[in-house]
Amino acid sequence: MDVAALVSGVLDGDRRSVARAISAVEDGAPELAELSAGVYPATGGAATIGVTGAPGVGKSTLAAELVRRARGDDLPVAVLAVDPTSPYTGGALLGDRVRMQEHATDPAVFIRSMATRGHLGGMALAAPEAVRILDAAGYRRVIVETVGVGQAEVDVAAATDTALVVLAPGMGDAVQMAKAGILEAADVFVVNKGDREGAGEVARDLRQMLHLGAARDWEPPVLLTSATEREGIDELWNAVEEHRGHLAATGALEAKRRARLLREVESLAAERFRERVARALEADPALARRLAERELDPYAAAETLSG
Amino acid sequence: MDVAALVSGVLDGDRRSVARAISAVEDGAPELAELSAGVYPATGGAATIGVTGAPGVGKSTLAAELVRRARGDDLPVAVLAVDPTSPYTGGALLGDRVRMQEHATDPAVFIRSMATRGHLGGMALAAPEAVRILDAAGYRRVIVETVGVGQAEVDVAAATDTALVVLAPGMGDAVQMAKAGILEAADVFVVNKGDREGAGEVARDLRQMLHLGAARDWEPPVLLTSATEREGIDELWNAVEEHRGHLAATGALEAKRRARLLREVESLAAERFRERVARALEADPALARRLAERELDPYAAAETLSG
Repeated sequence: MDVAALVSGVLDGDRRSVARAISAVEDGAPELAELSAGVYPATGGAATIGVTGAPGVGKSTLAAELVRRARGDDLPVAVLAVDPTSPYTGGALLGDRVRMQEHATDPAVFIRSMATRGHLGGMALAAPEAVRILDAAGYRRVIVETVGVGQAEVDVAAATDTALVVLAPGMGDAVQMAKAGILEAADVFVVNKGDREGAGEVARDLRQMLHLGAARDWEPPVLLTSATEREGIDELWNAVEEHRGHLAATGALEAKRRARLLREVESLAAERFRERVARALEADPALARRLAERELDPYAAAETLSG
Repeated sequence: MDVAALVSGVLDGDRRSVARAISAVEDGAPELAELSAGVYPATGGAATIGVTGAPGVGKSTLAAELVRRARGDDLPVAVLAVDPTSPYTGGALLGDRVRMQEHATDPAVFIRSMATRGHLGGMALAAPEAVRILDAAGYRRVIVETVGVGQAEVDVAAATDTALVVLAPGMGDAVQMAKAGILEAADVFVVNKGDREGAGEVARDLRQMLHLGAARDWEPPVLLTSATEREGIDELWNAVEEHRGHLAATGALEAKRRARLLREVESLAAERFRERVARALEADPALARRLAERELDPYAAAETLSG
């Protein structure tokens, strides 16, 4: 792989280069360090928007509508759909992106789904690097859509400037969301399928739960949308822009991005170390045997290996 | 903390000692290494059962029924309900454990919910240590129930001998589950609320999806239960026992447990290293500044810190 050519292609906004660079991130290619070093100075221009919520609430349709809205302002926009690939079958399902199709021919729109080749644990590291590639390629809005409502998925969405948490009537209520620990990750709440029965109740319950929480510098608004009907999209877009404006005005945007970066560096370093430990364990079957036979406990083994 | 006394209390099956030991795990107490070393030689007697699925499918009621069934065989049994605590508010909700209450006075039943004090990432490490404490205390079945359907939650449930994935009609269908990547984690599928409309369809869809997958050594059965009506519990219990018998007979049980242990040691070592890197970053504000100002990219910074 000619990394210098790839970097220069990305910086020129060449779509094939961007696609290849993201594939290199997915694969954990050895050239990643050089690629990252090449694109990093050109980042910082994109505003990032996370979209998370239970399967079935209409995240993809909503993301497609945000794309349309961004294009209305003539902003180049990218969508990164993050899919947890099972470590067992390697399968990824992305069947419901019909609405996305209409943007497929727009050269200022880049749509890409991304899977980790192994464990989702890797996605927390892979997604931000892919976002930086899209940022360096000139996309001014990058929408990161995740599948599922687990902590790992929420973490990915929350590692954006503005995290949208999407709900819909009949798809698990606010209490269920609170149980899954995702309410606090939201900068903006979206009750999609707002034309359906029960949407108003979901919004009301949500607002009540928010009032129970501690007062915050930014009170996450609760908006109703009906993405398939294109209703409420302007209001949502404005809320996203307003949130980022609020962050920028208070200095929180830079602080948030910097903190994110430090956590990412820590994780990268820890993952490197994990690989080193895995190799050490493989090279030392006696240690594995002593563990299995309970002569050595996991903490003592980790201590030994941490050097 | 007198760790020797605590260990001896755990090994004697003293409930207060077990509770205190699990709290030490939650807190990441400094005595954890000594505690782990003390209990580890006494582990291996417990069969572990994971229960995962979307909020609202009835996991708690099902777990309570498995407890009843275990007690029918006079087996001491523990339930560990793993709750992802939000890193923001520290809140945990466990409101629906009414059915569990009737076991509260049985001295051979231990029920405990567990939250990580910080990031759920820690749960993948905390839960297996808590399970070992329950194992060493003499519980012959340990049921690990998780909240949510994300990869992190599935990982915790899958780190058991037999993982149950629970569905219910109207709570997201099999395709949604497949999207969340959790189908492959199941050793046994349970369609709970089996008396409700649509339960048969959920089971049928699930079986069809399973047939699409690669043939496996163990074909996960799809069982219908109605936990609130106490229907299908014996069949479920038998399937769990049969699955573990199958693993034991083929040697897969020991191999699975050993592999789990090695991954855990790797994670423990990596987490220790992560803490070391975080301290190094804190001690070196120049590095953080160079990162923020894009003089240094995340990979290069991680390389520097990996030493």
